[in-house]
Amino acid sequence: MQLISSEIQSQMAGSSWIRRMFEKGIELKKQFGAENVFDFSLGNPDIPPPSCAADALHGLAERVARPFGMGYCPNSGLPEFREALAAYLSVQQQVTVQAAQVVVTCGAAGALTSFFRAVLEPGDEVLCPAPYFVEYGSYCGHFGGVLKAIPSLPPDFQPDIAAIEAAVTERTRVLLINSPNNPTGCVYSQRTLTALAELVNRVNATRKRPLYLLSDEPYRFLAYDGAVVPPILPLSPFALVLGSFSKNLSMAGERVGYLVASPAMPDVATLINAVTLTNRTLGFVNAPVLGQRLAMALLNESVDISVYARRREAMAQVLRAAGIRFTLPQGAFYFFPEAPGGDDQAFIQALLAQNVLAVPGSGFGLGGYFRLSFSVEDAVIERSAAGFKAAVAAVSSAR
Amino acid sequence: MQLISSEIQSQMAGSSWIRRMFEKGIELKKQFGAENVFDFSLGNPDIPPPSCAADALHGLAERVARPFGMGYCPNSGLPEFREALAAYLSVQQQVTVQAAQVVVTCGAAGALTSFFRAVLEPGDEVLCPAPYFVEYGSYCGHFGGVLKAIPSLPPDFQPDIAAIEAAVTERTRVLLINSPNNPTGCVYSQRTLTALAELVNRVNATRKRPLYLLSDEPYRFLAYDGAVVPPILPLSPFALVLGSFSKNLSMAGERVGYLVASPAMPDVATLINAVTLTNRTLGFVNAPVLGQRLAMALLNESVDISVYARRREAMAQVLRAAGIRFTLPQGAFYFFPEAPGGDDQAFIQALLAQNVLAVPGSGFGLGGYFRLSFSVEDAVIERSAAGFKAAVAAVSSAR
Repeated sequence: MQLISSEIQSQMAGSSWIRRMFEKGIELKKQFGAENVFDFSLGNPDIPPPSCAADALHGLAERVARPFGMGYCPNSGLPEFREALAAYLSVQQQVTVQAAQVVVTCGAAGALTSFFRAVLEPGDEVLCPAPYFVEYGSYCGHFGGVLKAIPSLPPDFQPDIAAIEAAVTERTRVLLINSPNNPTGCVYSQRTLTALAELVNRVNATRKRPLYLLSDEPYRFLAYDGAVVPPILPLSPFALVLGSFSKNLSMAGERVGYLVASPAMPDVATLINAVTLTNRTLGFVNAPVLGQRLAMALLNESVDISVYARRREAMAQVLRAAGIRFTLPQGAFYFFPEAPGGDDQAFIQALLAQNVLAVPGSGFGLGGYFRLSFSVEDAVIERSAAGFKAAVAAVSSAR
Repeated sequence: MQLISSEIQSQMAGSSWIRRMFEKGIELKKQFGAENVFDFSLGNPDIPPPSCAADALHGLAERVARPFGMGYCPNSGLPEFREALAAYLSVQQQVTVQAAQVVVTCGAAGALTSFFRAVLEPGDEVLCPAPYFVEYGSYCGHFGGVLKAIPSLPPDFQPDIAAIEAAVTERTRVLLINSPNNPTGCVYSQRTLTALAELVNRVNATRKRPLYLLSDEPYRFLAYDGAVVPPILPLSPFALVLGSFSKNLSMAGERVGYLVASPAMPDVATLINAVTLTNRTLGFVNAPVLGQRLAMALLNESVDISVYARRREAMAQVLRAAGIRFTLPQGAFYFFPEAPGGDDQAFIQALLAQNVLAVPGSGFGLGGYFRLSFSVEDAVIERSAAGFKAAVAAVSSAR
């Protein structure tokens, strides 16, 4: 019997690399014991939420047991949370944002699908610098959108602006960027963002259907060595920012995020109303109310990012010692090193033979590299050193 | 500038009646004071969650502040919650269900969109007895599905099985039912469900692409006068049940629901894996973890349904006194009376003139009736009596 649609059937056949590694990890941990497996495949923050999270939840406990304590809230989010987010985003983006320009969403993922549903006509294109988080393709593909990947410039992976400009067609509806970047750890510079915004503004000067500049920023809080993540909202009236509290508050499972549109967008209310509608009709209805209240209570808190900074150093040492080439990430918690031997999938297999789990660059639309998440305990990084060396030796001897 | 897609543009123009009434209510309450407005338009449970909800949340507070306390969970839900749900659903559905046949979703709405995305090819049809919750049309429409409404049989609104059978084509992929029903309050009888399941089984005998029988049951806990809501899973291998904790635990804003497939479905794992995939790629990722843990802690609890039973009586008295004809609802918290004068939109306007808010049957795909939600305080029902009488008088004198 054909239980599922042909499109979903083919998507299942090509299940994501991250998922495959997740399953491989479970298998290896069963076989060898969790302490003998070095799992760098997942972007699940392992640092506990800020310690005041427990207090905040105790505070909510009495409140939720009242009538409407966990009832429906407006589809765009709790009004008081939207207000608080507007103030928070005004500081972050260096432009005055009103609550009316903010929609609270089920994570940044929910913001992306709601936005794509609101703006895409079937056949519209979404340009995205590669490597990129592969689910972006599914997010727009549900609604007939087509993701076009434009390789970024190694070794530091700033986007290739000339190539992006050359790829713009009448059907290009969204330019989707992600900084600090998953998987490269690159932080887009002020110069890069200005050039991208100028490109978008130039395109929009002659258009009736605007090209949107959409910046996905869940890792904004996590930049190293004093690196600054410049704001995009002031640069284009068609800029939008997505974010979430999954990483900075370690509450990825709670699914609270947001979309904010440039207040300079002509008729911005129409776009916000459309995203509010699609947020409802895609079945999100509203972001979970407990999570919204918790994020509001913790809005100015953050996990201890010095932990990630320390691990970045430790991971760099391990890679250097193994002779693996990489650019030190400026942000997020990923390395995207070159695959020794050049074949990322072969190197991933060599790592697996050492019980080391990582994701091939092919899983992010760019072969020849691999991604390591250093959202793991320090000891895992240190004890993985021998495995990396052995894997490099294995692919070298195979040549 | 064309900010949004043409399809979403037209959906916004025809914004839902429930939404319009919601906005009208805010306006009237500002103008006349909340105590002088009688709002029967919303299905937002106003009874507090079970009193142990606060204890449960206090219990979770320490746990969430640990590493991964609110981290990602498997896309199909927390394994321990799936296990608990399987046991709970085995009792409810009178058939042994395994955790592997259950997906935890973002409410029943998220279950619907994930399911439709998993099974529909563009142009596939979803049959649904009318009146029905209008968002069903959007839920399948996102993925090219077409909802076909089949009027049910007044006065009690059991589905018209012969008409449903006559409407089945090669493209009919889903028969979607909802019992206890929103908006009619009808509970589908054992005889009705058996006939529907036999119809589905007959169709599937000659098909490669099965016709699914999908039962949306968020109001299952709420039946009056000892009425039984019969289980559907034992009746067809292609039956599925959706449910949520929005109404029985008054946690509609928390967005926790589930989908369970008949264990007798051939290759049921493929369907469950597909829904797990679409649940992820539609951006739900996973149902919120706090909500999942809370629902698990409260799985055998319920709001005090005697409150709804009492209000049902009070509402019936008000309607009788006004000379409005209705069938007493057997379940859920809605009346679906005939619109005096026959024109539901005209009668809704007459009610509005009395500061009484209700939703016309047209908003549920069936004119000539109107919906009243009695999820409101007892005093609102009692004090609305004069308004109903005056509205009836107004439409009578207008004829």
